[in-house]
Amino acid sequence: MESLKRKRGRPPRADRSGYEDTRQRLIREGLAVLTERGYSYSGLDGILRRAQVPKGSFYYYFSNKEDFGRELIQAYGRYFEAKLEGYLDAGDRPPLARLEAFIEDAKAGMRRFEFRRGCLIGNLGQEMAALPESFRALLQQVFRDWEARTARCLAEAQASGEMAAGLDPEAMARLFWIGWEGAVLRAKLDQSTEPLDAFARDFLLRLRPQSLA
Amino acid sequence: MESLKRKRGRPPRADRSGYEDTRQRLIREGLAVLTERGYSYSGLDGILRRAQVPKGSFYYYFSNKEDFGRELIQAYGRYFEAKLEGYLDAGDRPPLARLEAFIEDAKAGMRRFEFRRGCLIGNLGQEMAALPESFRALLQQVFRDWEARTARCLAEAQASGEMAAGLDPEAMARLFWIGWEGAVLRAKLDQSTEPLDAFARDFLLRLRPQSLA
Repeated sequence: MESLKRKRGRPPRADRSGYEDTRQRLIREGLAVLTERGYSYSGLDGILRRAQVPKGSFYYYFSNKEDFGRELIQAYGRYFEAKLEGYLDAGDRPPLARLEAFIEDAKAGMRRFEFRRGCLIGNLGQEMAALPESFRALLQQVFRDWEARTARCLAEAQASGEMAAGLDPEAMARLFWIGWEGAVLRAKLDQSTEPLDAFARDFLLRLRPQSLA
Repeated sequence: MESLKRKRGRPPRADRSGYEDTRQRLIREGLAVLTERGYSYSGLDGILRRAQVPKGSFYYYFSNKEDFGRELIQAYGRYFEAKLEGYLDAGDRPPLARLEAFIEDAKAGMRRFEFRRGCLIGNLGQEMAALPESFRALLQQVFRDWEARTARCLAEAQASGEMAAGLDPEAMARLFWIGWEGAVLRAKLDQSTEPLDAFARDFLLRLRPQSLA
């Protein structure tokens, strides 16, 4: 009976945790720590302890902390691109409502972690002077991707008349991400979504054609 | 002859460096390091080496790193308040030109340090989850001061007709500092004043009454 139950249940942990499982666990815990504390101050030891991976194994997956950091930036980039795609490309609601839905999700995320975690890309951008130079191009690439996705959504809003015709979708997308990262920083400091709300309310309002009336 | 030269020149270092001199040197070097690398990653040892102050002496001036950090926030706050006062309260030019002059000064400052140094308050706000809790109220107080000074300048701009009547000076001052900190972060990442220019151009343009015409 006992052995039957075993076979029907999930296989024991050792069987499940192959190469990808351990690597994913390292990335998941690395993201959690870096999103909260940044790169410079995040020790590998703490991350390995959280992931329950011995130090020797770490070097099987990554050549050093810098290499791990680059993988974390790219993993966060992919995670966030999927999130933005889910919100901004969803055809089931008007373009600006999609941007609003993303903003609400981000606010909920910050609340869930009690404003300790912000945006990994913003943290590392702030920290750039102390980071390996190889991070710079990766971080810039992530911002370019977010801006491009946002610009496409704003161009749709403009085409449908939701956004004023005189505004440049690309310039406004760039301003969105500049202001949004500033608002995330302030939300962490104030432990409140109020800075995110203040920024987003103003940004969305000024996009509307009637705000020029 | 040799002794005569001595007397005419600056007194030897030991004579000049009294209590205030050493304390100021620690604060100056601490600000340089923290503005570049943040608090968590900045070791006391490196700061003491730069300031040429032995570790034993440090504890004569500050009880620990946290106490030192609080003093640095307040010193930076005072330095920046004087800067803002110099620009924003100067009656020799119209209010919005004063804000523009501050922006130009900040851009020059970032260029001078090759975009390695940003804003101490922004750095620490970003890092807040890893900082002593006692820093939070000090950082918030600095932002409140900056916002209040900026709001006064914008209210003057409104009174003189430079700024649209329908805008709220306090809300716009808050949005200025949210966006400005985001732009500083991006300027560090891009090693360029372009994000500061993009943000400031847009911010100033939308203040003008004619932008609603």
